[in-house]
Amino acid sequence: MIKNITNVRGFTCWGAHSGVKSLRRDLAIIHSEVPASLGIVFTQNQVVAEPIKITREHAKNGIAQTIVINAGNANACTGEQGYEGARAMVSTAAGELGIDEDLVLVASTGVIGEPFPTGEIVNSVKEIVPKLSNRSSAGSFAANAILTTDTFAKEGFLEFSLDGREVNLAGIAKGSGMIHPNMATMLAFIVTDVDIAPELLQKVVKEAVDDSFNMITVDGDTSTNDMVAVLANGKAGNERIADEKSKDCNVFRNKLREMMQHLAKLIVSDGEGSSKFVEYRVDGAPDKQTARTIARSISDSILVKTAMFGRDPNWGRIVSAAGNAGVPFDYTAVDLYLGNEKERVKVLEKGRPVAYDRNFMKKLLRESHLSVKLDMCEGEASAVAWGSDMTTDYVLFNSVYTT
Amino acid sequence: MIKNITNVRGFTCWGAHSGVKSLRRDLAIIHSEVPASLGIVFTQNQVVAEPIKITREHAKNGIAQTIVINAGNANACTGEQGYEGARAMVSTAAGELGIDEDLVLVASTGVIGEPFPTGEIVNSVKEIVPKLSNRSSAGSFAANAILTTDTFAKEGFLEFSLDGREVNLAGIAKGSGMIHPNMATMLAFIVTDVDIAPELLQKVVKEAVDDSFNMITVDGDTSTNDMVAVLANGKAGNERIADEKSKDCNVFRNKLREMMQHLAKLIVSDGEGSSKFVEYRVDGAPDKQTARTIARSISDSILVKTAMFGRDPNWGRIVSAAGNAGVPFDYTAVDLYLGNEKERVKVLEKGRPVAYDRNFMKKLLRESHLSVKLDMCEGEASAVAWGSDMTTDYVLFNSVYTT
Repeated sequence: MIKNITNVRGFTCWGAHSGVKSLRRDLAIIHSEVPASLGIVFTQNQVVAEPIKITREHAKNGIAQTIVINAGNANACTGEQGYEGARAMVSTAAGELGIDEDLVLVASTGVIGEPFPTGEIVNSVKEIVPKLSNRSSAGSFAANAILTTDTFAKEGFLEFSLDGREVNLAGIAKGSGMIHPNMATMLAFIVTDVDIAPELLQKVVKEAVDDSFNMITVDGDTSTNDMVAVLANGKAGNERIADEKSKDCNVFRNKLREMMQHLAKLIVSDGEGSSKFVEYRVDGAPDKQTARTIARSISDSILVKTAMFGRDPNWGRIVSAAGNAGVPFDYTAVDLYLGNEKERVKVLEKGRPVAYDRNFMKKLLRESHLSVKLDMCEGEASAVAWGSDMTTDYVLFNSVYTT
Repeated sequence: MIKNITNVRGFTCWGAHSGVKSLRRDLAIIHSEVPASLGIVFTQNQVVAEPIKITREHAKNGIAQTIVINAGNANACTGEQGYEGARAMVSTAAGELGIDEDLVLVASTGVIGEPFPTGEIVNSVKEIVPKLSNRSSAGSFAANAILTTDTFAKEGFLEFSLDGREVNLAGIAKGSGMIHPNMATMLAFIVTDVDIAPELLQKVVKEAVDDSFNMITVDGDTSTNDMVAVLANGKAGNERIADEKSKDCNVFRNKLREMMQHLAKLIVSDGEGSSKFVEYRVDGAPDKQTARTIARSISDSILVKTAMFGRDPNWGRIVSAAGNAGVPFDYTAVDLYLGNEKERVKVLEKGRPVAYDRNFMKKLLRESHLSVKLDMCEGEASAVAWGSDMTTDYVLFNSVYTT
């Protein structure tokens, strides 16, 4: 049926209602039956939530077994009380599971600055541990228990062969692209039964995050709580991946990137204040970093976002946003294409406007998935960023919405 | 990645926010590119919602192409205004899609007796039709847009071979087992690319509903809006199934039942007021109808439900509920087993208590998925019903919850 985290060998999970959020599941545990290699990336925000402080410490040896996530309270800017609460999450889970505390990671998402509801969380952790299950519904419970303003649970599942073994890779994420863009926490938890050395997993995770979650969030806009964690428990029985140049490592790297891009795109798709999904591709860049920076700059431009909402093929705004990226950019060299996922029309050639059918373009831009392609005609590097449009609803939501 | 409705050939869908529910998707459309065979089962409640009246009419010729579902307003007990609103849902969708009105089905779920928000719904239908998509995220949007008190979206996907062709079968459902058991609407929409004659599909759907959704809801407890609809558009290219005794029909029948049982069990799993999932199996019954009736009577007993919550192996309540089913039942002939999905312990043999380890039983009943098996030792027929326990939270929720 629907495959999820519970279909990855050796992993169980659950999600329940601790009482922090009204009538919604808000506490999830993901658990591996054996300690697993860990790859993890944290928020770049200078202010970090209490659970991040603990998880950073526990991540240092590259091994983890259990992740406990609560939604509804971010446990950020909560001081000593919050830190003790996060510690209690760890010690309760470790105690109930009978594992070392430093194998437990914690993450939180929700309202910032409210006292942490330690009592409810601790009681709920105790209730959840005996329920940890590999039934499909348990995966749904966990995926839903980490949500806040999200309108749907974000899940992915992939299976592939490696060293003659079947490997499973599953992930869940939360985050909604448009509501509170500077505040909304992005969390992703990915589990796999592949066997990979911790230090190599860390490297591969970092690369994949750069090509996925970091292409939907401009650096500096990360929240106090952002975290992407990957656990690999080795239960697939493949020969341990330890060489980053090996074929096996390459296969895993590609699958992990595919999973992260899938989850990142689902995050962009969410948010009631947006009406369109836009893919921004930069080709022909002199190097990868330039391509990334320009793609992100365009996707983050409010003028571009509103043009996309208005179905306005406003190439001036796109070129202008590229020019604002802070890297060398020669607009007289570029070709620019606009359209949707099925068809694109060239609107600029070597920086000069190309005549096109305006009615046809309006029709292309009416679809839900738009595509912008900028060819710098300079080198071989490419990058893709994803973003949404900006609607009148967005402004309304942000003026009335209280978390 | 995750497969859903959008992976069934010829089907597209979308789910969006019409404005009826606060900040949540609440309007879904599922569309087949060609008219499809229809199998459909409605509520047995004497009071039916306005959309049911229209959909019943449109279902009469056994063919449909599009289903429009709104959440947040049940359009029940809304009189002429509601009926006109449901008609406007149909005519708008038909107009935007360029198809006949009688190919459009409508369903609603939400608050009963409030005026139907025709304006919002009609505007939203117009916005959704151009967005209908076969992208995976569109499937998630639709699955989430039909929810009300549900804590997670209920989805299923199956693929199988038939007549040498690959057939896809996907479904979504809504309903939460415990909150407002007499009022909560149960909806399920299943789509497949199999080719099957409409009259046969209707028969197979009715049978599958009897073995699934009807084993979680006791007759008479259906809401004003309940509906299970199955569209089969024939895009798999198999030779049309027209003989109910054929091997192909049997394969499809089994897969459809598997899908409906999966969705039904997910509904039982939901509801914050419940803590356990219980499978009630009756074996050795003289006939199927007796087995069904007794399984449902046990699963619906409030005394049994509270015993399950209390981890109390109270066989007296189970036997008593069986005796209350309204069909012949000889408790001196039965064997009864209690436990969880992994292990069961015999507690009654030919109606007499069997000594068992009470501490071990308490441990078995601590798990989230319990199992009760009653062997009538009389005939060959079996039935399975599914239910949840009844918790102190349940009472609390039902006293404070307002839809």
